[in-house]
Amino acid sequence: MDSGELKMGWARQYMPVLAEIRKRFEKEQPLAGATVGMALHVEAKTAVLVETMAAGGAEVHITGCNPLSTQDDVAQALGRVPGVHCYATRGCDIEEYYAAMDKVLDASPNVTIDDGMDLIHRIHTLRRDLLGSVIGGCEETTTGIQRLRAMADEGALEFPVLAVNDTPMKRSFDNIHGTGESALSSIMITTNTLIGGKWFVVAGYGYCGRGLARMAHGLGAKVIVTEVDPRRALEAHMDGYQVMTMKEAAAIGEIFVTTTGNTSIITGEHFPLMRNGAILSNAGHFNVEIDIPWLEEHAETKETRDSIDTYLVNGNRISVLAEGRLVNLATTKGMGHPVEVMDLSFALQALCTEYMYKNGGSLKSGVYDVPYEIDAKVAYLKLASLGVSIDELTEEQKIYLHSWNAGT
Amino acid sequence: MDSGELKMGWARQYMPVLAEIRKRFEKEQPLAGATVGMALHVEAKTAVLVETMAAGGAEVHITGCNPLSTQDDVAQALGRVPGVHCYATRGCDIEEYYAAMDKVLDASPNVTIDDGMDLIHRIHTLRRDLLGSVIGGCEETTTGIQRLRAMADEGALEFPVLAVNDTPMKRSFDNIHGTGESALSSIMITTNTLIGGKWFVVAGYGYCGRGLARMAHGLGAKVIVTEVDPRRALEAHMDGYQVMTMKEAAAIGEIFVTTTGNTSIITGEHFPLMRNGAILSNAGHFNVEIDIPWLEEHAETKETRDSIDTYLVNGNRISVLAEGRLVNLATTKGMGHPVEVMDLSFALQALCTEYMYKNGGSLKSGVYDVPYEIDAKVAYLKLASLGVSIDELTEEQKIYLHSWNAGT
Amino acid sequence: MDSGELKMGWARQYMPVLAEIRKRFEKEQPLAGATVGMALHVEAKTAVLVETMAAGGAEVHITGCNPLSTQDDVAQALGRVPGVHCYATRGCDIEEYYAAMDKVLDASPNVTIDDGMDLIHRIHTLRRDLLGSVIGGCEETTTGIQRLRAMADEGALEFPVLAVNDTPMKRSFDNIHGTGESALSSIMITTNTLIGGKWFVVAGYGYCGRGLARMAHGLGAKVIVTEVDPRRALEAHMDGYQVMTMKEAAAIGEIFVTTTGNTSIITGEHFPLMRNGAILSNAGHFNVEIDIPWLEEHAETKETRDSIDTYLVNGNRISVLAEGRLVNLATTKGMGHPVEVMDLSFALQALCTEYMYKNGGSLKSGVYDVPYEIDAKVAYLKLASLGVSIDELTEEQKIYLHSWNAGT
Amino acid sequence: MDSGELKMGWARQYMPVLAEIRKRFEKEQPLAGATVGMALHVEAKTAVLVETMAAGGAEVHITGCNPLSTQDDVAQALGRVPGVHCYATRGCDIEEYYAAMDKVLDASPNVTIDDGMDLIHRIHTLRRDLLGSVIGGCEETTTGIQRLRAMADEGALEFPVLAVNDTPMKRSFDNIHGTGESALSSIMITTNTLIGGKWFVVAGYGYCGRGLARMAHGLGAKVIVTEVDPRRALEAHMDGYQVMTMKEAAAIGEIFVTTTGNTSIITGEHFPLMRNGAILSNAGHFNVEIDIPWLEEHAETKETRDSIDTYLVNGNRISVLAEGRLVNLATTKGMGHPVEVMDLSFALQALCTEYMYKNGGSLKSGVYDVPYEIDAKVAYLKLASLGVSIDELTEEQKIYLHSWNAGT
Repeated sequence: MDSGELKMGWARQYMPVLAEIRKRFEKEQPLAGATVGMALHVEAKTAVLVETMAAGGAEVHITGCNPLSTQDDVAQALGRVPGVHCYATRGCDIEEYYAAMDKVLDASPNVTIDDGMDLIHRIHTLRRDLLGSVIGGCEETTTGIQRLRAMADEGALEFPVLAVNDTPMKRSFDNIHGTGESALSSIMITTNTLIGGKWFVVAGYGYCGRGLARMAHGLGAKVIVTEVDPRRALEAHMDGYQVMTMKEAAAIGEIFVTTTGNTSIITGEHFPLMRNGAILSNAGHFNVEIDIPWLEEHAETKETRDSIDTYLVNGNRISVLAEGRLVNLATTKGMGHPVEVMDLSFALQALCTEYMYKNGGSLKSGVYDVPYEIDAKVAYLKLASLGVSIDELTEEQKIYLHSWNAGT
Repeated sequence: MDSGELKMGWARQYMPVLAEIRKRFEKEQPLAGATVGMALHVEAKTAVLVETMAAGGAEVHITGCNPLSTQDDVAQALGRVPGVHCYATRGCDIEEYYAAMDKVLDASPNVTIDDGMDLIHRIHTLRRDLLGSVIGGCEETTTGIQRLRAMADEGALEFPVLAVNDTPMKRSFDNIHGTGESALSSIMITTNTLIGGKWFVVAGYGYCGRGLARMAHGLGAKVIVTEVDPRRALEAHMDGYQVMTMKEAAAIGEIFVTTTGNTSIITGEHFPLMRNGAILSNAGHFNVEIDIPWLEEHAETKETRDSIDTYLVNGNRISVLAEGRLVNLATTKGMGHPVEVMDLSFALQALCTEYMYKNGGSLKSGVYDVPYEIDAKVAYLKLASLGVSIDELTEEQKIYLHSWNAGT
Repeated sequence: MDSGELKMGWARQYMPVLAEIRKRFEKEQPLAGATVGMALHVEAKTAVLVETMAAGGAEVHITGCNPLSTQDDVAQALGRVPGVHCYATRGCDIEEYYAAMDKVLDASPNVTIDDGMDLIHRIHTLRRDLLGSVIGGCEETTTGIQRLRAMADEGALEFPVLAVNDTPMKRSFDNIHGTGESALSSIMITTNTLIGGKWFVVAGYGYCGRGLARMAHGLGAKVIVTEVDPRRALEAHMDGYQVMTMKEAAAIGEIFVTTTGNTSIITGEHFPLMRNGAILSNAGHFNVEIDIPWLEEHAETKETRDSIDTYLVNGNRISVLAEGRLVNLATTKGMGHPVEVMDLSFALQALCTEYMYKNGGSLKSGVYDVPYEIDAKVAYLKLASLGVSIDELTEEQKIYLHSWNAGT
Repeated sequence: MDSGELKMGWARQYMPVLAEIRKRFEKEQPLAGATVGMALHVEAKTAVLVETMAAGGAEVHITGCNPLSTQDDVAQALGRVPGVHCYATRGCDIEEYYAAMDKVLDASPNVTIDDGMDLIHRIHTLRRDLLGSVIGGCEETTTGIQRLRAMADEGALEFPVLAVNDTPMKRSFDNIHGTGESALSSIMITTNTLIGGKWFVVAGYGYCGRGLARMAHGLGAKVIVTEVDPRRALEAHMDGYQVMTMKEAAAIGEIFVTTTGNTSIITGEHFPLMRNGAILSNAGHFNVEIDIPWLEEHAETKETRDSIDTYLVNGNRISVLAEGRLVNLATTKGMGHPVEVMDLSFALQALCTEYMYKNGGSLKSGVYDVPYEIDAKVAYLKLASLGVSIDELTEEQKIYLHSWNAGT
């Protein structure tokens, strides 16, 4: 086995839900005839999804969704799987990046799978010729969904898309546990600094943010949360964190992680207030949460280490990890979400692709919730793989829940 | 000051949001002319809500929503507030309980406020004469909302009701923190047993259940969760708890708390499997989660202490707290939800009553979400009282969130 | 059964270690001929220790160690146990308190058991006639040991005393878990205020303090620690708490608990800085940690509720629980340490009394550590009662641990 | 700057205590004339200690204490510091390893600094000629101290050694936080598996073990503890972990970490009981806690990935990280203890070296505690660097603590 195959073998070992789905796919061939276009982080876990799709009969064309997240050995091993065409290469430049994406699109996919809306965006702008052949899409990220809803609101979205990101089985695990654990381990390994006792600033108290907050706190950090939503702010407060504005936090924080999915969270308004040694990172989809252009323009000096750029601002050293890209994936040592988490998220993707290939034709354009049955199916498969049994509602209980006549 | 007034004075001290609302109510008199009927736990915190309503111009008629939760000294002090009529007495029998409720209804309320749907249920069954005069209602509990939705589904609900329980500002605080802390402190004080190291079984991983689980865990318990929903079960698993069926948990657990809002959670199927010394309690609305009639019928002996009944089953001692009623309220020492939590929940009730009195006439029958503005208002008032500032979305950020054209 | 007996029956249920010891004591009668003098909190758990001693053949004379911690119904039930003489009454005045202590001493105890050095102090000052008949003593508290060591250093201690408090089996459970849980539950039930989100100030990061800090944090509080020892201060910092001086903490804290065993921790220097609504309590042995005389003298007004005195200082309301006495015991609802914790501490006392009665005659005056064998015995008995097995060192491992010649 | 210098620059940034000591050393030259021999992990943090020693006037000769932990770029940069001689190379064979150690010894050190007793052992066996010129030593590890005490007990230790490992300022931070965080991050990054929800087995509940347990728990793991000491076992139980024998744990665990400092913790008795996918690692000093020779001999197959060896036993895949060596240091990506933690440990080493150079000549052979003044000095320097102030005992308090005559 070469290193790409060894990595895939390792991942497979901790992906029992996809393994179960693969067994059924091999037998039933539900994707026979489908061409699936994907733009995802090309590494071992994704490869297990791709081979599951192929096992179900699909022709898969895949490229990366981030120039720095591709693992070349995995990309090569994946390219050797029958029915799979992989165009991703690590460190490609922007032109190569879009050229690879166009190769995926050239295959005329029936179903698209995006991590950040890249394929869908390109189809709706530069490749509108493909609009006819796409049955539907699946989107993996908060950011992507947000933008798809904006498109749908404007009437600009021209086929149905499943909001995989928003379904409880995704966000309760991928966002909370996946981002939480992998962002932390990547920060710890990249910087070799302590978490315990530190002022750890989390921007955004959504699913990603609260996972990170809880885990940093679990390692002994003093967590500060910044928010724009008053209810979430109050939740963070009652959960035991300090809530304040980024301007206030800037002067206190020692480690910062942005998780908002928005832009301009840490900016030129904040950098000059920061302490010497402050470490900044981003766990949101795009690299726009930390205003790196400001640092590049205004910093007195810049020192570059492996995955760390240290800027001197007002005489204080401020270090940004992975150029403000997804810290769990884009540092040299970062491995992305833990395998078991991606087993759940990709099991959803596999079943959603099956669903969209079968039913997408009869759906209007728009953003759709993942059907409850798919969510529950993945949950039950995972619980079974853990050997965990749960209770079932009895008839008496079902009736009780729907009655309103029982007295006090 | 007598003891009822002293208790109200204590509560007022930790209810800054209601205090702010009261200031406005006194000036604006938004409830002038309204008759408000309430069936709530009559104790100091509720009294502060009631006096706020009265300060806003309402005539308030109130009784209890549980025969054991009334504090007589508070009821008396409340009765002396101008514009308030209080009919609740502690330990009243079932006839007196409903007689008191009828007195509230005799006042022909325009707006009803329920904690368990008692008033609304009675109006729709025995007091249908009142249907004409009610503008709308507010409901405080998960259980009540569940039943109201069942009514609405059957077309049986004849006026609009605000689902106060379901709004984020209620369930993220009242259910998680209110139930969590008060159930724990009541169990600890009533039993004087240790939480650290114990097998602590939480039935249901909804808002109440996850609050309790987190806090019991925070005191050092080993938490077991039972669930019927596979996704919630998996969430509990990933959060670090052991998930199993109640039948499995019955043989392991040392302390049990039910939080499901359903019936027959711990039954004759489970009691004979339990360990000697097991302690059972309920934090759900009704006393039907633990099958006490089974124990009364089948136990070999019964021993009664203050708020504890100890049954001998199969030679093992099983103790039930507060006769299976709400453990945070119905034990002798239980104080109900912490004051600050009720400040939020009752601030919602005050603003929802104002809203319903003003707008209910133009709403169709049905169950309504609390308007976002009310939720946000309460959150901002609370943050202000804490001296906490939060960020606001900039124009650039608002545009970014609604655009879909920005590149990778 | 009367209420005292019911309480003792409840406690016995959760004291499996004492139950095992009692079985052996009944058979072996190791205390036959001994007169044991005790000054402990007279409530149900203590009663189980006392009856265990009596079952082992001792004549026991007991009184309280705090005027407010005696439960009269238990004292009466205890007085009916053969071989036991109980002189404690709740709410006795200072003269009655010492008169009861003298009755214990009049019995000429061979072994003394103290919770705060009361008996030993009295014997060494006012009752020096008894010095000849005392074989030795056992001391339960940090404070008591500190003072005994001071006595020993001055050459003033005239018989051997076992430092029960200092032994790992005591302080790792009684101080950390016992004080932690019971102080919290008593504060929660007495004040009905929320812990989640609060600034919770713990004075002292010894065993009691770190238990409290961890649990308050586990409920969602933001914990502030004050310390005089720089190493402990740094431990608290790295464990995730904020460390500062009491002067700084005074202006921020919402709930304060002192656990130092020292005097004048919160004083007239701090009260005027405090926030409106601040709640103060003490979990250290004596009521000298909060300077209540200052408040009594300088406060603008005082309002008294059940176990709460609210003083007005600089226009802010500051509430002190239980007059600054042990908050877990001295509030009306407080139950003292959880039963299972006292099972361990009192099992130590039972075995230490046996040891002292047997071996004290051959020991010089001084403060002694509890013999390792007693500590380990109690640990093994508890693990056995839990059904927990642990590994044993193999011969190979014992040799490895004592060798220094094995290479890298 | 080359990569070694960049790494040292990064470390310096988070080592404020050593920076303060360096300032004084430069001025006072307390090590002028001393030759210091060191065998430590040669990486950036150690390099900052070495340059601090050299700044204080010492001639430093250093080699590695583990063939896999040397970072060659740092070793080279360090070799260029005036007064420093570095002999360590990564991946050297056993002969080269000891040859390098002999070069250190050839310099006739006055003070030795060990991480695992390598230098001291060699001096007492093969290089007894040096016994005359050594004034004293410092030892960094639990394992080393254990062996030194065994030597001292046998009368085999021939100069004084400071037990740096055992001092509160070392073990409360280095062992708890250093091992805890770095072992976790190394496991997470190396395996890319999830911690949340996993059965995480910690062998040993000493300082290292309880740090790891708390942090794994903080990430959502279900922690199992194995112990041989009944008191520690009970502590783990009350802290909320499951305690059992390794034989029981073997069948349940998903991730195992040994922290005992002993041998043969996970052996041929346990491997055949394990689950498919089990991950094994060691955070104790030597690679003897997991019986890898058994696996090498009995496993059906072996698959090797980067820092992971996967053995097939009974058809189940069992993976061992870093060949059972220190998981936080010996994996490819592992960075060792966080910088801030080593700042404290190495500050102790710097001050202990100064102390030993000055006072060692007047000390008898034996193992000595670090003087309290050194411990407190490091604590105060760290608190100062954090901007944290703490209280000081007042005269009144000092008197109170030493008096025994104050009444109840």
